[in-house]
Formats: sequence, structure tokens, C-alpha cells
Amino acid sequence: MASTCSLPAFNLHQAMPTSKATMCYGKFLCSYSNLVSKQSVQSKPIFISTDSTYARVLPNAISMNRRECERFSLRNGLLCKALEIENNSLFRVGNKFQLDDVIEAQQFDRDTLSAIFEVARDMEKIEKNSFGSQILKGYLMATLFYEPSTRTRLSFESAMKRLGGEVLTTENAREFSSAAKGETLEDTIRTVEGYSDIIVMRHFESGAARRAAATASIPVINAGDGPGQHPTQALLDVYTIEREIGKLNGIKVGLVGDLANGRTVRSLAYLLSKYLDVKIYFVSPDVVKMKDDIKDYLSSKGVAWEESGDLMEVASKCDVVYQTRIQRERFGERTDLYEEARGKYIVDRNVLSIMQKHAVIMHPLPRLDEITVDVDEDPRAAYFRQAKNGLYIRMALLKLLLVGW
Amino acid sequence: MASTCSLPAFNLHQAMPTSKATMCYGKFLCSYSNLVSKQSVQSKPIFISTDSTYARVLPNAISMNRRECERFSLRNGLLCKALEIENNSLFRVGNKFQLDDVIEAQQFDRDTLSAIFEVARDMEKIEKNSFGSQILKGYLMATLFYEPSTRTRLSFESAMKRLGGEVLTTENAREFSSAAKGETLEDTIRTVEGYSDIIVMRHFESGAARRAAATASIPVINAGDGPGQHPTQALLDVYTIEREIGKLNGIKVGLVGDLANGRTVRSLAYLLSKYLDVKIYFVSPDVVKMKDDIKDYLSSKGVAWEESGDLMEVASKCDVVYQTRIQRERFGERTDLYEEARGKYIVDRNVLSIMQKHAVIMHPLPRLDEITVDVDEDPRAAYFRQAKNGLYIRMALLKLLLVGW
Amino acid sequence: MASTCSLPAFNLHQAMPTSKATMCYGKFLCSYSNLVSKQSVQSKPIFISTDSTYARVLPNAISMNRRECERFSLRNGLLCKALEIENNSLFRVGNKFQLDDVIEAQQFDRDTLSAIFEVARDMEKIEKNSFGSQILKGYLMATLFYEPSTRTRLSFESAMKRLGGEVLTTENAREFSSAAKGETLEDTIRTVEGYSDIIVMRHFESGAARRAAATASIPVINAGDGPGQHPTQALLDVYTIEREIGKLNGIKVGLVGDLANGRTVRSLAYLLSKYLDVKIYFVSPDVVKMKDDIKDYLSSKGVAWEESGDLMEVASKCDVVYQTRIQRERFGERTDLYEEARGKYIVDRNVLSIMQKHAVIMHPLPRLDEITVDVDEDPRAAYFRQAKNGLYIRMALLKLLLVGW
Repeated sequence: MASTCSLPAFNLHQAMPTSKATMCYGKFLCSYSNLVSKQSVQSKPIFISTDSTYARVLPNAISMNRRECERFSLRNGLLCKALEIENNSLFRVGNKFQLDDVIEAQQFDRDTLSAIFEVARDMEKIEKNSFGSQILKGYLMATLFYEPSTRTRLSFESAMKRLGGEVLTTENAREFSSAAKGETLEDTIRTVEGYSDIIVMRHFESGAARRAAATASIPVINAGDGPGQHPTQALLDVYTIEREIGKLNGIKVGLVGDLANGRTVRSLAYLLSKYLDVKIYFVSPDVVKMKDDIKDYLSSKGVAWEESGDLMEVASKCDVVYQTRIQRERFGERTDLYEEARGKYIVDRNVLSIMQKHAVIMHPLPRLDEITVDVDEDPRAAYFRQAKNGLYIRMALLKLLLVGW
Repeated sequence: MASTCSLPAFNLHQAMPTSKATMCYGKFLCSYSNLVSKQSVQSKPIFISTDSTYARVLPNAISMNRRECERFSLRNGLLCKALEIENNSLFRVGNKFQLDDVIEAQQFDRDTLSAIFEVARDMEKIEKNSFGSQILKGYLMATLFYEPSTRTRLSFESAMKRLGGEVLTTENAREFSSAAKGETLEDTIRTVEGYSDIIVMRHFESGAARRAAATASIPVINAGDGPGQHPTQALLDVYTIEREIGKLNGIKVGLVGDLANGRTVRSLAYLLSKYLDVKIYFVSPDVVKMKDDIKDYLSSKGVAWEESGDLMEVASKCDVVYQTRIQRERFGERTDLYEEARGKYIVDRNVLSIMQKHAVIMHPLPRLDEITVDVDEDPRAAYFRQAKNGLYIRMALLKLLLVGW
Repeated sequence: MASTCSLPAFNLHQAMPTSKATMCYGKFLCSYSNLVSKQSVQSKPIFISTDSTYARVLPNAISMNRRECERFSLRNGLLCKALEIENNSLFRVGNKFQLDDVIEAQQFDRDTLSAIFEVARDMEKIEKNSFGSQILKGYLMATLFYEPSTRTRLSFESAMKRLGGEVLTTENAREFSSAAKGETLEDTIRTVEGYSDIIVMRHFESGAARRAAATASIPVINAGDGPGQHPTQALLDVYTIEREIGKLNGIKVGLVGDLANGRTVRSLAYLLSKYLDVKIYFVSPDVVKMKDDIKDYLSSKGVAWEESGDLMEVASKCDVVYQTRIQRERFGERTDLYEEARGKYIVDRNVLSIMQKHAVIMHPLPRLDEITVDVDEDPRAAYFRQAKNGLYIRMALLKLLLVGW
């Protein structure tokens, strides 16, 4: 893509002119087509502003604020001088995010996950240390929820507001008067995209998010589509493991509870297969065992896995015990099977006592009694921190989809 | 109204002193009672601020921000020098909006419509080119919806937020605990007006908006009151015709579908009667024909109209084909009549093929199958642009009611 | 608590160095452990910023904005020089609020009430005279409503937004998917506290607010918990009496209507007992008389009270006639008793005619016909002003809980 910029581009193989740093504090348009490595397909002019507010992205231009500009200058200035090209130049500050939408866990490769997690760490700092971040000031997110999920909705809305963005809420889009009158999802999306800059959608039908993304000219994030995908949950789970254990390669994870129906554990197993030397233990009542498709996939990727009926033994070996809720609604009339299944693997202080000191307990929440309340006070109970990490992952994704790296 | 201003007023018949332009960038109070034409009844002192935030309007003062001030200076400065007085001085930047509330389409004359449309065009630019407009910063809009209408609600809330304003939402005011307990609409309004600066109300009863406006000390916008009025829809329809066709005088419009029950087409016909050489074609199944009151009104205003059963012929002649949905609920038990009516006039690629190149298809949405999906990709399919225009019209009305021209 | 501050603390018994005043306009950390009186337990370093936005509160630091800093300097500067120590040093600008949560009326003593009312007066000025206050910019309030109460919710949300804060709304947390799935209130709170800075909760169970506050690491405000407490209503009632009558000591208050079930009148009677020479009249149908616990409490505090069946006589003597709604749902099948009770004490123009000129009529709203509509226009009808005062009280409490005095 040709640069539309009239200012002379500075070449990668020359030191960045000193005056550039100064210019960063004004407003200018420049091309960095030559600055980034040849792997980069990106050569949009950048619009840099020192204002607290962004200028709306010009066509073919990338918007950067002062902080980003400083980071960009520092990083790229050094790179230029050293004539080095980072492998992850695709994730360089100022670049466009590789994804237009976030629809399913399969979209993310390991490098992209690492880069997103780095942004999520920045988001932790923003949320904790600064007041009123303005990164997404002027942006409007529409939460289009066709089934209620207050936890997920609040998490996304908090993420948007923590970054200075605004929110339009539809808590019960299924009764959206238009949907009730027979309007198609596509028509609804074409209307809502006119009112907002990004759509976060939860739907009761598998595949709905993909249809929405195919229609929308603005980014769509899947916040769960029925029995289908819930990619931000999958990302926050992997992020939590990295944050808690400090690594993803070489970890041992016990997945416990309803492994047949839980999309959470299925997505997690899928994403863990991208890392090296991972060992997965499946601990579940017989009626809700992990299905063969995931086991086969893990085997094909060389991931070691094992089924076990002994939670204590697994807990003693694992870095992560990932507990899940046995869902009553999956058992229909067979409440006897439900009662048998749900009482079988409880994480309590006995389990804690056998776990390693550095290991953690995770849970996607809500929990009923599959983790006893007296576990909460133990520092290895990571599930509320995990919920909080959902905020950082969603902040990161909103930032990436709306303003790029 | 006497000026409460202590600064000397500058006279219309003298050139504006040069220093005035400079003063605009500070904060001062001045009178423009003599500046504007004699038709103007407005002579409030103006409070001008260079801050990004408005100063709350002083009693008897008009608030202007820097941008408005610049426009005011330029326009009026030039006017002063040329000793010219524009006809539309009532709509001059800084003047109060003529309406206290927006309740029904009948409130708008042609000049006011033109002036509002000019503001709506400004709003398009603001929405597209600038980030985080602050025109309505500090203002709070309450959306008081006694029946759900997510499309309309999101459109108003997006409009408010695009201008920097804030929103209090009540999606289901009918179950408003107080209304459920028997509180009158008037009492509810007296409470809500204490929490907000403007009320956007949708109600299931015709006339409710008028009652609310009669009670409230703050502006009320009618976002639809039952079978009554929905004036912002009427305005956005006319605005869309002007934007798409480039004119309103001399146009030919085909109104298609349910003309008996659709308040949309009734209001549109009413507003089109204000323009010159308009020709209206009514195309509808017999059971839902346009009622005599509108036909008589058009005749009395000298508007040419014609009923036709031939959609193809009408489509070939019209600038605008305005399709509407046949509403099943109007037919009660007679589903046979409904099925017959709804299948009769479908806008499809055949209709498109006969339409003129510059003509457009409009629809108030939601649509079912009265416009086939394959029409969407044609540039003459204007209905999603029309929905978007609702945003600009609502931005314009919010701006006008809260801060004036 | 030891000061964590590295800057030298200035001593109370020395005049504040002149340079301090200047420093206030920059950014610095100082200790005021010695500045405040010995009664104060507070010795946190203060973070002072001239920015329009707050810096996020550092651990062990108190955040002040420029206006607060000026007030702090002026007041304390003078105090220092005069070596005087005010009694209410606990309420000095910059100090932390004494309460971590607002759960019940019993938390407030008379001095605290006075100090809160002073802040509420400031809030009136902010709401009326300035646009877009930024006092709570960057703060996020979650409204967690387990039963709908639009009036209370809008009041809190308006309060937050009037101070520049942001809001996450859950209008129907009872159907909160997680609560519906059996999640405990405690788990919900642990999740929501991760997304927000303060929780405003309404619940259908008495004691729920206390449980939430015990769990949350952020402030919780009780917006009504079933038959339990509704402390912000109690505060706004007392505030309204002070604003309308000009005093609280020596007043005569007639409580009228359903005194058995109304938590409003019970809390009000309780709070009035903190003032001197108060006289309370109970006027109610026999079936809904004030219960003995409150009567006994008043007697134990030396508050004069009297039951009366003569509304006219009471109205002629009182400063405040506090009318309440007779709630049909309290009478079950006995609609005959309900009809008898509800028609018995109506405040109408006859009652008005006998009231003193300075006296006022109050009502917690919604009202049905226990106050006739023709009373509304009389300046002594204070109930809509009372509703508005709820906004100021809630602004004050949000400000106090989030940024302190």
C-alpha cells in the first residue's frame, strides 16, 4: 500500500533524525513504511497527536497518542540505530491488530497470545495506577446481549470505561423489539454498527458471532455464542496461568468436573496445545468425560494427557487445578446421576493440603459447592484473580481492535 | 427582554471592533441584542468560554464554546461589515432553539427543517471526523422508555454520547416501581427532571409526550407515543430524501405497504406537503389504504397525489420508493388477509431494474421480506443510511434543545 | 499509622511555611500527620494534583484536587497560625471519610450528619453552577439492584455522573445469570468489586447490604435492603428538614400514614432523636400505628412524642407534616381495612390552610392520592424538592466514600 504521506520517510538503515523525537510532540503525518521490517505488510501513515483526545483515524492512517508515540520512538529509534529487526515486528506499537474480530479461540497463535498478554499487563498498570485513561476516549462500544450474562457484560463495560470509552447497553436483545418482530441478525447488526465503533455480542446460537462479524464493518467480539465459543474466557484462562505460574511451557494442568459440556475446559485444552511439554489430566465423573475430539487433537499435537479418577493424586502433581461446575440442566430427569456426579470431585482444604506451594486453583465461576468456601482464603485460590484478569484481557482486546498495538 | 449585560453592546450598523475577535478567546459577557436583526426576539447576554467544558448557562445568558464563538464571530463579523441581515437570523449560531420540546411533526415549518438539516450535516462531520466531541459535555439525558424500542433508544443514546453527553437509561419504565405502584406520569416526570437535563420518552399512550412536556421544566423529546407521533422518525425521513436526492421541491415519492396504520408514512406525507411540486403515489393493499384525512390535507395544500396498484409503474417514475412493513397484529384473526396483503408489494431486483439511476429505496426498519435481501447491495438501497441519519437528526435536536443554534 | 512520606512534615505548632501554598499548585507528597489535631488518627501522605483528573489514590495516600487543596491550605494555614484546633477536625478537607460503607441510619451521629449536609450544600452548587464536575472522574460505580427501583437507581446514577464518574448498571441482578445459578451474594460481590470502585446495592433481603460490605474491599452503599434499611432516604429526609426549616433542634414533626410498615418514618424518628427539643406527632389509622420499639427509644432519649387522631390540629402546630403512602399489599385480603385506612388522613388544601406559613409537607414518593394534586403548587409542598435533595445527599456520600472530606 502506497504511503499517502507528503513528509519524507526516514529509512530503516539510517539513524532516526533527532528532530523526529521532538516532532513527535507536535502533530505530524509520517510514513513508517521503511521503518518496520520487510515482514511487515503495514505502511500506513501515522497521525500523531499530543492532545489528550485522539484524532479520528484518517483513512489509511494509524492513530497514536503521545505515550504510544514515545514508546514508538524509543523502541524504533533504538531498533533503527542497531539495524535490528525484531521477530515480533507485527506487534510493534502503532501497527494494526492482526484480527478484525474476535470470534473463536482458534484465531490466536502463540506469538499473538504472548503479545496480547503483554498488552494485558499494561492494562493492569493502567487500571491500578492511573485515573481516567483516555486511550479509547471518543469510542463507543455496543453490548448486544441476546441472553443475559451480567458478569461478562459488566466485565466488558468496565474494560471499555476504564479506557475512557463509552458504552451502549442492550441487556436483553432477544426481546429487542425488532428481533421480536422478525428482523434478521444481519439487519440488526447493520443498524447497530451505525451507532457504535465496536460490537460485543452474546447470542444463544452457535455461529451467530461469525455471522455478525461477516456483516459488520466494525469489529465484533464474541462474548459467548450458545454452545459455541467464548474466546475471551479462553484467553483470560491462559493469561491467568501465565500470571500465576510464570510460564506456560512445561506446565501440568488438571481439568476437573464437567469436561463434556464445559466449553471453557475444551478451549483451554486447545490453547494449551500450543505450548511445549504441557501435561493435562482429566478428572471427571464418567457421565461427563472429556470427548474424544479434544483428546485426539491433543495427541496429534504431541500433548501428553491422562484420565484419572484420583483428584488428590492429580492435585499433588499439578501446577493448576482447574475446577468446573457440574451443570444440573445437562442431566435432565436423571437427578440421581447429577447428584452423584456433582458430589464426586470437591476441591476442599484436603485437596489444598496436598497441592504444591506454587500451584493454584482456578474456576470460571460461578461456583456452587465444588470448591468449598474455606478454600477462598488460601493464596492459591486464584479464581477471583482469574475473574479480574478477564477485565485486563478485555481491555487489551478492545484497545487492540480499536487503536491497534 | 432587556440585556443584563454591563459591557457596551456593539451595533449592527458598525463594523465589529477588531478586538472582539480576540476577546472571544477569553471569557466575557457581551450583548448581541443589536447585532442580530430586528426580527430576532433574542437579546440574552452570551457567556463565552475557551474551556473545553461549558460553564453552566447563567440565567438569561447563552452559553457558547470556543468553536461556536469562532463561527459566531466569523459569520456575524462579516454580516456586520456588509450590513446584511440574513432571513434566517432566527437560526443564527448562539440563538436559542425555537422549540422547548419536540412532540410532533406539526411543530416544524420548512425554514426550521432546513436549519435543522444544516445542523444535522454538521453532526455528520462531527461524528465522522472528530473524536470525542464535547458539545454536550456535562449534560445528562434520561431515556424514559415505557415500552422497549432498542433501535430508537440506542440511536438517541449514541447521539448523546457522540456529543460528549451522558445518559441515564430506563429501558422498561412501565415496570418502573413507582409507575407500577400507581404514580402518575406527571409525578414521575417531576422526579426525573431533577436528575437530568433532557428527557427522551417513549410511551404506549398517545398524548403522553405532550403531558410530560407540559409538566417538565426541561426539554422533552417524544420518541414515539403509541399510535400517536414519532417526530424524529419523520424528520430523519425528510432529511434522508434531501441527502439522497439533493432536493425536496419537485420530488416524486411512492409510499408503499401499510399506509393505514403506519404513522411513519402519514407523518412523511404531512411534512412533504410543505414543499413545492411534490407528487405522492400511494401503493397499498386495499385493506390498509391511506386514510382520507391525509389525502384531504394534501389536496388542501395543493399536493398532487394518486393511488396506484402498479408498483412497477410507480417505481419507474419516483425519486423515492418508501416501503413499509405490513404489521400482522393489525389483522387480528384474519391471517388470510394478512398473508394476501403482505405478499402483494415486494421490492425486489425486478423493481430495482425499473427504477431510475438516481432514485432510492427507503424503509423505516425493521424489514421482514417486503424488501428482498438481494436489494441490499444496490447503491440505491438507502434504508441503512436512513437509519444512520436518525443518529444525525437526533444529535442535531439534542444540541439545539440543550445549547441552541 | 506511620507516615510513609519522605518529605519533611510541617508541625502543627509552627506556621505553615509560605512556600507550601505555592507547592500546593504543583504535585507533591506531604505528610499532614502533625498538622491535624491529636484526635485525628489520620496520618496518610497526601497526593495533590493540579490536573483536572485525579491521580489514582496511592496506597496510604489521600487524593486532593486543586480546589480541595486551596480550601485545605486556607483553612489549615489559618488554623496553624492561630494554633487552633477545630472540634470537627475529623471532617477537615482532605481527611478520609469516617465510614467505609453506608449500611444503616444508625451509623451517623449528629456531627457527621452536619458535616455531610455541608458537603451536600456544596453539591447543590456544583450541580447548579458548574458544568461537568470532574471530582469523581475515573471512578466507576456499579449499581447492583436485586429488585428494581428506578427512582433510587436514577438518583444514584445521576449523582455519580454529575460528579464526572461512570456507572455500570445491573437493573435486575436477581436474574443475574450467576445468582440464578445459585452463586452466593459474597461471590457476586467478589467479582463485581473487581470491575468497579464502589457498589450501590438494593436487595430484597434484610441484612444483605451488611453481608456485601463485609465481603467487599471497596465501599458499599445500601440503597434499600428489603424491610431493613434505606439510609440515604433517611439522610435526605433530615437534610430536607434542615434546608426547608433552617434548623433541626426544636422542631415539631408530624408523621402521618402508615407508621407501622414504613421504614422511612421509622428511620426519620430515629435520626430526629439526635437533636434537641424535638417533638414528634404520630398520626395514623389504628391498624398501622407506630410500633413500640421506636416509641420506647424516643422516650429513652428524652424526645417528646404524642399520638393523635386529629391531622388538622397536628398540622397547625407542626413545622413538618411528613405524609406516607398506605401500602395495599400490607393488608392482604382485608381490602376493607385498606380502604378505610387509606382514605382517613389526606393532605389537601384544607390541611394546607391551617398550616403555618413556614411549615412544609414532605413525602418519600411515590404518592397516590394521600396528598391531593392541588397541593403541589403551594410553596410549602416540599416533596419534589425532597426528591431532588436525594441527589445531593447521594453526590455527597459518593464523594466522601471515594475521595474523603
